[in-house]
Order: sequence, then structure tokens, then C-alpha cells
Amino acid sequence: MNPGFSEWMEGTGPESDIVLSSRVRLARNVKGVPFPHRMNDEQGRRLLDSVESAVNAMEPGWQVHFRRLQDMAPLERQVLMEKHMVSPLLVQNPIRYEGVALDQRESISIMVNEEDHLRVQVLLPGLQVEQAWQVANKLDDVLEQHLDYAYDETSGYLTAWPTNLGTGMRASVMLHLPALVITRQASQVFTTLAQLGIVVRGLYGEGSEALGNIFQISNQVSLGLTEDELVHNLSVVVQQIVGRERSAREHLKSNAELVMADRVGRSWGILTNARILTSDEALRLLSDVKLGVDLGLIEEPLPYTFPQLTLMTRPSFLQMEAGRELSASERDIIRARTLRTHLLGQH
Amino acid sequence: MNPGFSEWMEGTGPESDIVLSSRVRLARNVKGVPFPHRMNDEQGRRLLDSVESAVNAMEPGWQVHFRRLQDMAPLERQVLMEKHMVSPLLVQNPIRYEGVALDQRESISIMVNEEDHLRVQVLLPGLQVEQAWQVANKLDDVLEQHLDYAYDETSGYLTAWPTNLGTGMRASVMLHLPALVITRQASQVFTTLAQLGIVVRGLYGEGSEALGNIFQISNQVSLGLTEDELVHNLSVVVQQIVGRERSAREHLKSNAELVMADRVGRSWGILTNARILTSDEALRLLSDVKLGVDLGLIEEPLPYTFPQLTLMTRPSFLQMEAGRELSASERDIIRARTLRTHLLGQH
Repeated sequence: MNPGFSEWMEGTGPESDIVLSSRVRLARNVKGVPFPHRMNDEQGRRLLDSVESAVNAMEPGWQVHFRRLQDMAPLERQVLMEKHMVSPLLVQNPIRYEGVALDQRESISIMVNEEDHLRVQVLLPGLQVEQAWQVANKLDDVLEQHLDYAYDETSGYLTAWPTNLGTGMRASVMLHLPALVITRQASQVFTTLAQLGIVVRGLYGEGSEALGNIFQISNQVSLGLTEDELVHNLSVVVQQIVGRERSAREHLKSNAELVMADRVGRSWGILTNARILTSDEALRLLSDVKLGVDLGLIEEPLPYTFPQLTLMTRPSFLQMEAGRELSASERDIIRARTLRTHLLGQH
Repeated sequence: MNPGFSEWMEGTGPESDIVLSSRVRLARNVKGVPFPHRMNDEQGRRLLDSVESAVNAMEPGWQVHFRRLQDMAPLERQVLMEKHMVSPLLVQNPIRYEGVALDQRESISIMVNEEDHLRVQVLLPGLQVEQAWQVANKLDDVLEQHLDYAYDETSGYLTAWPTNLGTGMRASVMLHLPALVITRQASQVFTTLAQLGIVVRGLYGEGSEALGNIFQISNQVSLGLTEDELVHNLSVVVQQIVGRERSAREHLKSNAELVMADRVGRSWGILTNARILTSDEALRLLSDVKLGVDLGLIEEPLPYTFPQLTLMTRPSFLQMEAGRELSASERDIIRARTLRTHLLGQH
């Protein structure tokens, strides 16, 4: 595993000031094998072996490396989750026969024995849902040469949960929407999205809060439309949200520049001077600072991107950096020091 | 008037990290003339003239300059009040025949037609109540050569209010007691002081709040004791309070250094980055920063003393600096800019 940052965190790609990342994941299952939540140990082990073989058979150009979760330290697994390379579900205990294949750049992730036998995921910076789908589609074709997918003419890909039936695809983007939140338009925008079959979640998926004004927006339905239609539709919706966020930012800049400069300045001042920071507070402050940079209220460019700074607030990443387990109060101290020194370029 | 800082604000003198200033004022009245609240215009004007003559007759070494309040712009009068050179009462409307004599260093102030005909005041940095009394005593002798004071063998100096009868003296010190406030010992200390006949007030005297953890401590009684006894007693009590504050600071440093470093760091970060600051918030933040410097939690020395920075938060001083009248919201902006640039040495 790369102990540092994933390539998608570098902040490149279209609309990357608002769209932090685009992700496509495909749910796939092997014919004749029970779904993970119903398989026995033997079935689990054999499925894991067969995916490992399929990954190892891939062209070297993919640079994909397979790992069994049992062979990884718990902290290492948690950091992968914090980097959005694997799902929270995959790294939950008890770990039995789960696996993950990652490429060097950490833009590809193939989870084994999560809810489905395979979850093929591609993660790219900025608004690149269609590009992510193209890569995922190729990856899927390569894997299918070695794995016999469960597929039905009527239902499409068979999946552990009916919501994934059909294409088995979920496309999602991670958005930073501080201006919509500050101008109190966010909930109205999200209500409209729900009517379009679009789901809004927080930073770490279902049930997680929108910490740091970061939202995950994804397609709800994967049945009845082609993959191309799904990613295109999501991309169009995201462009509309981006437009709304840009308008809200213009509005704040034109009508409340001083108040925003004050808010952003205070957040910067606290981030670079506090000695104790909870992760919630850190994300709130980082969100302000990111907005401040985007609005031109902070003139110096930040030495790290917003996704990189966000990762620096996470408990397991901090423990990995510190080289040991940390209590919650120790983390609050290390978090403050890490953010302070990195933001001031003193690390 | 000196548009900048008074000499007493330079932060010198004994215990000056806790004792910001020492002040002695003498209430004096001229025989046969009604007290100011009962005098007519003619009596007021003649009293003012006679004090002006007495001041002008002083040796040039005193460098004392006499002004009629009518000749001063309202803003100029207000700034004198903010610098503690005159009382709030003196500069209240309507201005009729009030006057003030100040020396170059702004350590001497002779108010005319405040509550009493004369209020002779000496203000020194640090804990120097006895020294202030010695200067005030000399000044009083010099003035008495030209003015016939109302004095009674039984009651001592006659004054407009009976609380000032006797010596007519009030000695006071201004203390910065953040650690006693943080450790919640302040109210207990002040209760004890009340039993000793010592009065505790806020930054601008009676009825004003203890903004910035700044307290004025003064003797209540001026009858029955000599001036030497009064100033000595006050000095001893202040030394005890200083000892309590020092213990509380040691305690915070030993037992809560990280929490204090966090608090102080946040206050510094906000002070140097906010764009809008009310005077209450500014004083609260400055108090933290001052404590941070005293505890060694802020390593860089501040370019200004705490009394100087406190003055920079005041409405009239800001308007004088800006060269025009400012609304409350304009002041909050100018205050933030003034403190930010001065603290960062960018002015």
C-alpha cells in the first residue's frame, strides 16, 4: 500500500475545485458460488483464490497488486478505507477471506468478498465519471476472461442486493459544496436530486455526515438504463450542481466578501495555531480554508490539496504516520500538529 | 494631546506583567466656592480661570499644559478618557467649564470641575502606588501655593461626596488577572477584598465590566488613615493578589499547559486573521495572548504592550487613528485591521 496519497487526491481533472473525485464501481459475482454473506469458509477461500489468479493473470501494464486482508495490519486496512480505496464494510471485523487488488496510483481497486464477490472500482480526480466508467469497463472485460460472471438476460448482473441488479454499476462523485451550505440552498438542491433518483451521502458513504461540506452524489437505480446512460445522466446532474455551487460562491463573493474573509481568516488562524483539533472541527476549518482559496480570499496557494488535507485529519492515517496506536485525545494533538506544520510548510 | 500612547503604557515598573498601572488621585476643592454640581456659570468660569493660573504658575520642569474641554474636539476628549487620563464623568455632555492639565508624558492629570473642583491624578506603570502618591503630594503642594483649599480639622479635605472626605485620596491599581479568572478563583479573591474595604471595578471604573480580565482595585475609605498608610495598605494587598495570580499561572502551566497553549494559539490565530472584531472579543483575545506571552507559550515578544494593544481596541482611539467618525460596524473592521497589522508588525 502507498502510505502517502492516492493519485486521485492530486486535485487535477475538470471542475476539480468543486468535484473532488469521480468513481465508478461494478458489482460482480461468480456463477454457482453463494454470495459472501451466505458462503462457507471453503467457498470463500476458493473464491478469493480464483480472483487472485485472475488479477495475477492481468497484463503487467495494469500494475495491479493483490492482497489478502488477513495479511494486512488492521491500521493499514483502515487507512485504505480512509483513502476511499475500500469500503467501510470490507474492513469490518471479522476479517475472513476478503481481498483487495490495487494499482500503484491507487485509482483502481478490486474488492473481493465484500457484499458481492467482486467490486471493481475506478477512482479519478475531478469530474470524470465517463472516463472512470471506460476504465472500469476495460478492467471488467479483462477479469471476465478468467471469471465466469453470474448474468441473467432479464436481470443483468446478479448481485447480493437487488438495488445493484442490472448493470451492477454505481457511479458517484464527491463534491465540496460549502457555498450551497452557507447560503442554505443545499437541502433544497438535495431534495430535487432525490426526485431524480440521485442519492446524497456524506464523506464516508451511507449514514455518514457531510463533514467538511463534502457530499457523495450517486445514481440510485442501476436497472433499466445502460451504463453509458447512467454515467452521462450523473455527469449532467453534477454539472448542474457545480453551476449552483458556482453561483452561490459568486453571490458570497459579491455580497458578503468581508464576512467570508473574516470567516475564512479565522478558520485559517485556528488551523495554523490550535494545539488540539477534533476531526470534525478540522474538517469544518479545512472546508472554510478551501473555499477561501477558491474565492481568492487566501492568496497563498495551499501546499496540499483539499483531499490530501482531509486525509490528514483521519484517525488511522494519523496513527500510521505516528507509527503507533493513538488514543482519541492523542490524535487530537497529533492532528493539530500535522495540519499546522503541513499548512505552514514546516514539516 | 499626545495622539499615541501614554508613558505609563510602556509596561515598565515592578510586577508589570500583572500590574498594568498604579494611580493616585486627590480630590480638592477651593474654599468658599460651591461644589461643581451646585455652582453657577460665573462660579464655574472663575474656578476654571483660577486653576489655569495656578497651573501656568508651576515650574516649567513639570511640563504641564492646561486645556479647556470646550476647546477640544469631542473625539479628543473621548480618547483622553480611553487612555485613563480623565474620567468618563469629565467628558460627559454638556461640557461647560471643565478643564484638564496634562504633562507631556501623560503621567499627570489635573481635572477641573469634575465631581470636585480639582482631581489631581498621577498614573505610573507597574506597582508604584507609593511613588505615585509622592508625586501627587508634591503636585498638590505646588497647586496649594495658588489655591486656597477647603479643609477642616475634623473632616480633612472637604469633598463633593462624603466617601472622599478625609485625605480626599483614592489609590488604585489596574491588574491583569486572567489565571485567577480561568481557575475560577477571582470571585473568591474579590469577596475577601471587599471585607478589607477594597473595591474592585472593571476597565473603565464603576459599573464597567472586567473586559479582558482587567480589574481596577482601589481603597474604599479615605478617612481615618494617613495617605502613607492607605497607599502602603493597598500596595500590600496588591502584592498578595499578584502572588495569587502567579500561583494560578504556575498551576495552569504545570497542569494544563497543552490546553492553555491551544487556547492562546487559537486567540492569536483569530487576532491575526479575523477581519471583523468587536471590542469585547478583541480584549478577550488580547488577554489570552498576553497570558500566553507571560507563560512562555508565545515565544515571540509582542511589538506592543498589553495596555497599548488594549487602547487600540477602543472606539475613539480607532476613530482618531482613522481621522474620521466610524460606525460601530466600521470600527469592527478597522479594529481587526489595526490589531492584525500591528501584531504582525506590518503597519
